[in-house]
Amino acid sequence: MVTIKVAINGFGTIGKRVADAIDAQEDMEIVGVTKTGPSFGCGLAAKKGFPLYCTFDDVEKISSFDDSDYDCKGGLSELLSVADVVIDCAPGKMGATNLQKYKSAGIKYMFQGGEKHSLTGLSYTSCANHKENFNAQGTRVVSCNTTGLSRTLVPLFDHCGSLKVECTMIRRAADPGDSDKGPINAIKPVLKVPSHHGPDVMTVKPEIEINSLAVAVPTTLMHVHSIIADLPEGHGLNTEKIIEMWMDTPRVIVMNGKEDRIPTTAEVMEMARDIGRKWGDLHEIFVWEDGVKLIGNRLYYFQAIHQESDVIPENVDCVRALMGTEKDWKTSVSKTDSAISKYYNL
Amino acid sequence: MVTIKVAINGFGTIGKRVADAIDAQEDMEIVGVTKTGPSFGCGLAAKKGFPLYCTFDDVEKISSFDDSDYDCKGGLSELLSVADVVIDCAPGKMGATNLQKYKSAGIKYMFQGGEKHSLTGLSYTSCANHKENFNAQGTRVVSCNTTGLSRTLVPLFDHCGSLKVECTMIRRAADPGDSDKGPINAIKPVLKVPSHHGPDVMTVKPEIEINSLAVAVPTTLMHVHSIIADLPEGHGLNTEKIIEMWMDTPRVIVMNGKEDRIPTTAEVMEMARDIGRKWGDLHEIFVWEDGVKLIGNRLYYFQAIHQESDVIPENVDCVRALMGTEKDWKTSVSKTDSAISKYYNL
Amino acid sequence: MVTIKVAINGFGTIGKRVADAIDAQEDMEIVGVTKTGPSFGCGLAAKKGFPLYCTFDDVEKISSFDDSDYDCKGGLSELLSVADVVIDCAPGKMGATNLQKYKSAGIKYMFQGGEKHSLTGLSYTSCANHKENFNAQGTRVVSCNTTGLSRTLVPLFDHCGSLKVECTMIRRAADPGDSDKGPINAIKPVLKVPSHHGPDVMTVKPEIEINSLAVAVPTTLMHVHSIIADLPEGHGLNTEKIIEMWMDTPRVIVMNGKEDRIPTTAEVMEMARDIGRKWGDLHEIFVWEDGVKLIGNRLYYFQAIHQESDVIPENVDCVRALMGTEKDWKTSVSKTDSAISKYYNL
Amino acid sequence: MVTIKVAINGFGTIGKRVADAIDAQEDMEIVGVTKTGPSFGCGLAAKKGFPLYCTFDDVEKISSFDDSDYDCKGGLSELLSVADVVIDCAPGKMGATNLQKYKSAGIKYMFQGGEKHSLTGLSYTSCANHKENFNAQGTRVVSCNTTGLSRTLVPLFDHCGSLKVECTMIRRAADPGDSDKGPINAIKPVLKVPSHHGPDVMTVKPEIEINSLAVAVPTTLMHVHSIIADLPEGHGLNTEKIIEMWMDTPRVIVMNGKEDRIPTTAEVMEMARDIGRKWGDLHEIFVWEDGVKLIGNRLYYFQAIHQESDVIPENVDCVRALMGTEKDWKTSVSKTDSAISKYYNL
Repeated sequence: MVTIKVAINGFGTIGKRVADAIDAQEDMEIVGVTKTGPSFGCGLAAKKGFPLYCTFDDVEKISSFDDSDYDCKGGLSELLSVADVVIDCAPGKMGATNLQKYKSAGIKYMFQGGEKHSLTGLSYTSCANHKENFNAQGTRVVSCNTTGLSRTLVPLFDHCGSLKVECTMIRRAADPGDSDKGPINAIKPVLKVPSHHGPDVMTVKPEIEINSLAVAVPTTLMHVHSIIADLPEGHGLNTEKIIEMWMDTPRVIVMNGKEDRIPTTAEVMEMARDIGRKWGDLHEIFVWEDGVKLIGNRLYYFQAIHQESDVIPENVDCVRALMGTEKDWKTSVSKTDSAISKYYNL
Repeated sequence: MVTIKVAINGFGTIGKRVADAIDAQEDMEIVGVTKTGPSFGCGLAAKKGFPLYCTFDDVEKISSFDDSDYDCKGGLSELLSVADVVIDCAPGKMGATNLQKYKSAGIKYMFQGGEKHSLTGLSYTSCANHKENFNAQGTRVVSCNTTGLSRTLVPLFDHCGSLKVECTMIRRAADPGDSDKGPINAIKPVLKVPSHHGPDVMTVKPEIEINSLAVAVPTTLMHVHSIIADLPEGHGLNTEKIIEMWMDTPRVIVMNGKEDRIPTTAEVMEMARDIGRKWGDLHEIFVWEDGVKLIGNRLYYFQAIHQESDVIPENVDCVRALMGTEKDWKTSVSKTDSAISKYYNL
Repeated sequence: MVTIKVAINGFGTIGKRVADAIDAQEDMEIVGVTKTGPSFGCGLAAKKGFPLYCTFDDVEKISSFDDSDYDCKGGLSELLSVADVVIDCAPGKMGATNLQKYKSAGIKYMFQGGEKHSLTGLSYTSCANHKENFNAQGTRVVSCNTTGLSRTLVPLFDHCGSLKVECTMIRRAADPGDSDKGPINAIKPVLKVPSHHGPDVMTVKPEIEINSLAVAVPTTLMHVHSIIADLPEGHGLNTEKIIEMWMDTPRVIVMNGKEDRIPTTAEVMEMARDIGRKWGDLHEIFVWEDGVKLIGNRLYYFQAIHQESDVIPENVDCVRALMGTEKDWKTSVSKTDSAISKYYNL
Repeated sequence: MVTIKVAINGFGTIGKRVADAIDAQEDMEIVGVTKTGPSFGCGLAAKKGFPLYCTFDDVEKISSFDDSDYDCKGGLSELLSVADVVIDCAPGKMGATNLQKYKSAGIKYMFQGGEKHSLTGLSYTSCANHKENFNAQGTRVVSCNTTGLSRTLVPLFDHCGSLKVECTMIRRAADPGDSDKGPINAIKPVLKVPSHHGPDVMTVKPEIEINSLAVAVPTTLMHVHSIIADLPEGHGLNTEKIIEMWMDTPRVIVMNGKEDRIPTTAEVMEMARDIGRKWGDLHEIFVWEDGVKLIGNRLYYFQAIHQESDVIPENVDCVRALMGTEKDWKTSVSKTDSAISKYYNL
């Protein structure tokens, strides 16, 4: 089988995870990853056997890797020249600059949710708009929050035909490996009201009406969404049916806080560590079964989002969408997830 | 002037604060406070000159105070016999038992929000139903959260005539002086959906339709409410008018997170420490001006609640309501707050 | 009585506290405090009746206060011209610049522990070297940590004649009102070994041999010192005698973690709030009685330091030392503390 | 090759990790793990193919697993009857009871550091006393803290011939998956002075003189040790040589906080996640290179301990010691670690 040649531009928090997930797929291969200079991450790439490139085409910067005994194959341009598609995992604000490079290289490109929808004019999440992205030249895989909202809201929308949603995002204030950021003992409301998080869902599913408020709190593990969704008349659902729907939804885990002894995000992440994926990642959205309740037409529920990793499998599906190799999103999801599971057969 | 004789049953977190606030009023005096046995709090009472009684009528327990050189005047019954009104600040679950004692003593009584509305069949908060409590025999001063919601929602309701509200309560997981409780690094959704917090507002203002969701987070300082309120057609308000309304509302502080450099609850409480009330208390509800936004008929805003103290002035007003000494709630509020301000003239 | 005219240059976290403590003394008065521009702190000064000056002599900056309706009396030079002594509470790095201004003004000056000993060549803490500072032109009041170490080590040294000390400082990572700093969930060793904290004691008591290590942890309330002190042969002390010594030491509180139910710094600060000083401050060093143990000649103990306020009374004593109005440090301490207690007679 | 048949009694935090590490070895196999009843952990065991037994011999309890579709092979006695050695990973306080069962079964046994040394009269850690445990009937693998101290102190002792140590343990207050415990915002000194942690080293290396103090802080990731070690005259070491010694020591990682950008335990654990072991574990002790300093004969350093996992490889080595299959501790360590590395070849 001919495999899709994937370049990863930026081998950090998201890039290293995407690279591993791509590497686990039979129909794809990593042709290279970039780093700005020699550092710990280069060793990670070497250990995985990923060819290492420099983020820049600057000769001096490329040769700086030699000093640290890392084998740098060249600059970004060289990497792009051997790839079918590049997944941009660079830190924010580099989007516009990088986009030009990708276009010049004439290859397909994917950005992450840190970039705005307007950069590409097209966004992606597996369950919402795989078809709209089929054979597109480039797109943006939406953020962890938008991905999480889409996972539970899209099947609900697909059943009901319309949906009005309000969400309060209780956000982790820093990632686990980030020791600089606070607060240590405070709650920080995001004073842009409504926050940008909810409406971003409309970039992949414009028919869902949604707004959000956000606060940051002193935890590093996960975001929690406190969601209120108004269903249209005649939805024919009840609490149990909604729970069943989500139990049948890919990349959604429904567990009972009380019976399964998972009262907080601490226990959710502990469960994720038991699953055994690298970094203790949880690609799935976690819904508390006993926190779901439909009262009349108004649905209340909580879900938890592993901000570091829920978008990883979406990046894999998105490669198949852009490359036009798998038209059906559910088939792609199934391929992606089964390959990842085999990979982490601890 | 004849002063109202007030007994405090339970001199802990709430009791000590209520006692100080009552003591600051010209029309009231503390005739005694109770402790279950000799402890640090007895010294506090002695320093303030509050007569000390035992929570129980048990002779042995009463005499146990002597061993620690605290002057205990007798048991609860004796305290009740010299009081016009008792403010129950005992820990939860004691309500039903205590209620019988208060009725037997034939004096007026007030419980705190830890007790259920059904215990007294009547609840109180200054801005919502002072009149309904006028000359009543006993009542319940609602909880910190209900008080906080009432402070901003009641004036809105009074203007609009109807109101539908959803609130996500982001709660502090432990009080500042409580080192036992976690979580240290997690978010804990309250899996009773909807939570009891919002609907409790209807015990003082039944016309406001309200539900809530709640999560606990690793902070000790304040609760934050993330609120969505649907106003009826023809409300005639805009964002600015709503902010002005709250600026004119007693016990509501409106400040700008950005301009006033108060981005989180940490800075709110720092501002409270500058005000100089004992314990660094903040009796007022804090609303972020730049977090208020009316879009169509839907209002979004954040407010912060000092869970240890916002109900303190309400307890004072409630004494005047029960005793029938001040019919107008705003006059009582004004008396209460001005007396407290003088007291803490640091 | 002629009072000492005190200027406070910098009315922030330390400045506002020092101003209040000076204001409470019979033999001193605040002739002015400085702010860089109009802000919340100006209102605080106005409320207290402290004349307000601008940190700079710049006319434009001075007039900027008018726009906010604050009554600014002039620039720093004007303030210095009416003062006997200036207490520099400016943020770090301004020391050298400010020192020149104070010398030009020909008045006495005091810096805080954020400045280095070398700036003034003289440092101060009440119990260690009041005499050496008597009638000096200027000095530096040592930091919260050095003050805390001196309070318990100096009496021990005075009894024993020599002392070798090692201390691990477990530091709060951010102040309560600072929401920017992390870490949220990590321990951060201070990789300068030994840390600067311990040796700074030798600027006020050169005979004490001391080193320290430090870590920062995710709390805002207090520093904790874990101390090992080697006593010389023939010290004649035992655990009980050392505890008694500290019980008799000014500005040291000894309480029992178990019996007094004060297991952590959370309960220590709660006790401080009950004392009722503004900002819930604790000027005293807190020693856990049940954490003190002498084994052979080696003494182990823990103490907690309120980093925001323990140096406040030392600043007052230091004024008397520089101005030559009170030769005996214990008499000054007694005056200072009794005046502060009266002030906060809540 | 005949493999050693290992039973794991208790398949929780430690048990599941030990089982995985044993399972990775060529010379050992898991013959069964126990659970008290059907729960999430049973699924983990099933996924790994570990035979599942009940902690009790009670028929009713054994059959309770059937109801949840878990295949329970029988009670503890049956498991012990097919094992060569049992590793007790039960929660504390069960030691004495379990010891009798193991003795009755006539097989070798290992306890964890939660039990006291007196239970077995023998303790184990790979680098300190593998030889003393060779062919012994039963032992106790020491705790995470004792293991961590031994890893860096034993090579130092072996070089110097004597060692006097003081350690302040800055402990994580709760494990990552434990959301109940606090404190959220405080430091808690362990008021038993000296703490039991340091002296426990003497159960495996009696010649090292050591005491310790301990505090708990609001973090979940790692313990940090702040260590002072007095070397005897004529040690012939300097800071660089000590760092080199540890770089050559198995299961010790030395990295530079500044250059490697690992300033806190957050970044240490992030590095561990990159290594890719299950649960993101770090079996190695982490020493900050720039936190090591020898001044005269006194050595100062910091190390971080992953409390959930550092004892895991020691449990593997200990099996070989008790079974008498590998006399040389370094050879065992090498086998253990290389097998674990292959297992986690992510």
